Amino acid sequence: MAYKALDEQGVVDYIKNRPAMKKFFSEDAELKVEEVGDGNLNMVFIVRNVNNPEEKLILKQALTYLRVAGESWPLTRERMRFEIQALLKYNELCPGLVPTVYDSDVEMSLVMMEYLENHEVMRKPMVARKRFPNFVDQISTYLVNSLFFTSELYLTGMEKKELQKKFINPDLCKLQEDFVYTNPYMDSEENNWNSILDKEVKEVRSNPELKIAIAEMKRAYMTHAEAMIHGDLHTGSIMVNEEDTKVFDPEFSFYGPMGYDIAALLQNLILNYLSHIAHTSDESERESYQNYVLDMVKNIWIEFARKFDETWANNNRGELVPAKYWDFPDGEKAFADYRQKYIARLLQDTAGHGGVKFLRRMMGIVSVWDISSIEDLKQRAQAEAAAIRIGKRWVLERKTITSIDQLIQIVRDES
Amino acid sequence: MAYKALDEQGVVDYIKNRPAMKKFFSEDAELKVEEVGDGNLNMVFIVRNVNNPEEKLILKQALTYLRVAGESWPLTRERMRFEIQALLKYNELCPGLVPTVYDSDVEMSLVMMEYLENHEVMRKPMVARKRFPNFVDQISTYLVNSLFFTSELYLTGMEKKELQKKFINPDLCKLQEDFVYTNPYMDSEENNWNSILDKEVKEVRSNPELKIAIAEMKRAYMTHAEAMIHGDLHTGSIMVNEEDTKVFDPEFSFYGPMGYDIAALLQNLILNYLSHIAHTSDESERESYQNYVLDMVKNIWIEFARKFDETWANNNRGELVPAKYWDFPDGEKAFADYRQKYIARLLQDTAGHGGVKFLRRMMGIVSVWDISSIEDLKQRAQAEAAAIRIGKRWVLERKTITSIDQLIQIVRDES
Repeated sequence: MAYKALDEQGVVDYIKNRPAMKKFFSEDAELKVEEVGDGNLNMVFIVRNVNNPEEKLILKQALTYLRVAGESWPLTRERMRFEIQALLKYNELCPGLVPTVYDSDVEMSLVMMEYLENHEVMRKPMVARKRFPNFVDQISTYLVNSLFFTSELYLTGMEKKELQKKFINPDLCKLQEDFVYTNPYMDSEENNWNSILDKEVKEVRSNPELKIAIAEMKRAYMTHAEAMIHGDLHTGSIMVNEEDTKVFDPEFSFYGPMGYDIAALLQNLILNYLSHIAHTSDESERESYQNYVLDMVKNIWIEFARKFDETWANNNRGELVPAKYWDFPDGEKAFADYRQKYIARLLQDTAGHGGVKFLRRMMGIVSVWDISSIEDLKQRAQAEAAAIRIGKRWVLERKTITSIDQLIQIVRDES
Repeated sequence: MAYKALDEQGVVDYIKNRPAMKKFFSEDAELKVEEVGDGNLNMVFIVRNVNNPEEKLILKQALTYLRVAGESWPLTRERMRFEIQALLKYNELCPGLVPTVYDSDVEMSLVMMEYLENHEVMRKPMVARKRFPNFVDQISTYLVNSLFFTSELYLTGMEKKELQKKFINPDLCKLQEDFVYTNPYMDSEENNWNSILDKEVKEVRSNPELKIAIAEMKRAYMTHAEAMIHGDLHTGSIMVNEEDTKVFDPEFSFYGPMGYDIAALLQNLILNYLSHIAHTSDESERESYQNYVLDMVKNIWIEFARKFDETWANNNRGELVPAKYWDFPDGEKAFADYRQKYIARLLQDTAGHGGVKFLRRMMGIVSVWDISSIEDLKQRAQAEAAAIRIGKRWVLERKTITSIDQLIQIVRDES
């Protein structure tokens, strides 16, 4: 079927003709469709059977232009192919931690998947100081399963390269290359910052050591094809409730550095931590929630590192270092040391990519809601200046980082 | 045309039917075909027009099995697609430094190209202590042009990813993953070494620090997609004469670490240097040629670094760091510093990959002719033991290397 952007009636007609949907909805289903997208790139429809509230799903379709800019910025629908591929892979590797895919259609650039009615996107509840008792455990499992099992630690070289080929994603990589690693640090018209911080922004843009370090991280982003990464794993790509964690929107997925995903997550949590400078006036409430968030950051890393090591030790079928390679006296210890060294490097990569991402959110095309929702510009600048200081130090000190505590200490020192 | 392995008559018939060949050979051409391949993977035919000695070419066709092992080890012909693609790209980027391609046929897994009648593969003349006055200049240009212009230093992200997709080369990468980075350092039946060196081989295989370092280099080989590399740039893949340098056999080409190609070249030259321990009994002749070879190693690096820097400065159109990124006070100096830092890292990568490659040639599936042609096993062991010591130090000390002189000093110290 040739691509056509669907409206609400179009969705009803489309679903009536999909074989997989005939099984999903009862024969007498009466479909009600509601468009709820607030994104820029896609239409998102909730589809329900009026006669049976259990029968409901999300239909997401890619548009051919960036919605926020009208039709002025055409974007290829190809990105939905990557989202579908990634969602299907995550359904396999991380079931329960991503929306279940019911059906998909690459030609039409759309996917039909689980409607997460009882979840909310993580940013707002975190501004409201909600706590998520299972989040650390669930998100660390998501990270380990999605990264480890798509790398050459688990896959053969052949398997990895097959998958990698499907995930060469030039358009969406280009967005991150520009908007994360380049444009924020030079004169570019879409840049946006709090004018109270003019001096700080100018300093970042003209700091030679920092510019070189950011270029190094951009090179790593562009060349280090370690695993199939989500590519945009901020807290706006995660839905949560007290029981549950669901990662969505993997349209940026490609073979990139593992540290990029870990960095996006930890850095967005820390931006939330900083936002409470403004959002939470009661000092003890603030301190309590901020400690909660930093503990989350720490424990996500610790659980990630623990599970990654354990998963590798127990599933060493990949190309990189076959079991037989370690078959010598003390070989088992050498393998354990190698795993630890590998994981230690991931922490340094996390510091580097995370540092850059702090900076880009403060001076690039788009901030995060946690921060941008602070109405008092002076208070906002306080959080933002801290983010800039943290970002700079994470990037510049990345090669000296040997524990998550060091990264957290930088956050405490600078906020 | 469906694939069919050609014999000599088959070559005549095939060429008669190729439109491009009708232009290449005169209408009355009388073709003489001679099979001259000594490789394991391909048939190589010299095709001449008996009536006009100017009209001649090489036709190279991939076989579907590894010739040396009969039909026991099937190999996909896909590798010829990579060779053709790479040769065409090199014809564009490094004209005169690779054989000119006249015609190619992916279906038939064959390429027709310049017959280098006045060139010889570099190993034998180097064992015979021949000198090549233009080699340093030519091979450093080859390296710069092939690596720089296929990286994100010159290409946009879009362009690079398009090319990268065409060069995902799982089969031949797998050969290097196994035979360079894995099997030589563990028990594997194809391994082959001088039994005088049993102790040294065993030590390498059970040295935890070294095994971890080799695994790190394997990871870099598998994940660092920096440029379209040749992938097998030893002195058996280079034809030379006093005027001229031609790089051939790029069937291993893929997007990998730039340092891998530089390493292959320098390390093979140094194996030649070591081979003169046995090949050249006259001390002053030996010293003179060995100095010549080490000067070559040094000057290749120096010229590579100089041209790479200059080419980048003058052709900064790539995705990585656009000119505007450096538009701040001292930005020009920062860009120059960044280029130097980038190149310094390439030297460390060269040390790492080169070190591994020294080791693999001494204890893996296949040595190099320079060394294997030494008949006296004791003398041979002397060169090989030095290669092992050098290899270990290059790998283990790679992160401390800041100049080519340090790498050469290690060669002198250990030989």
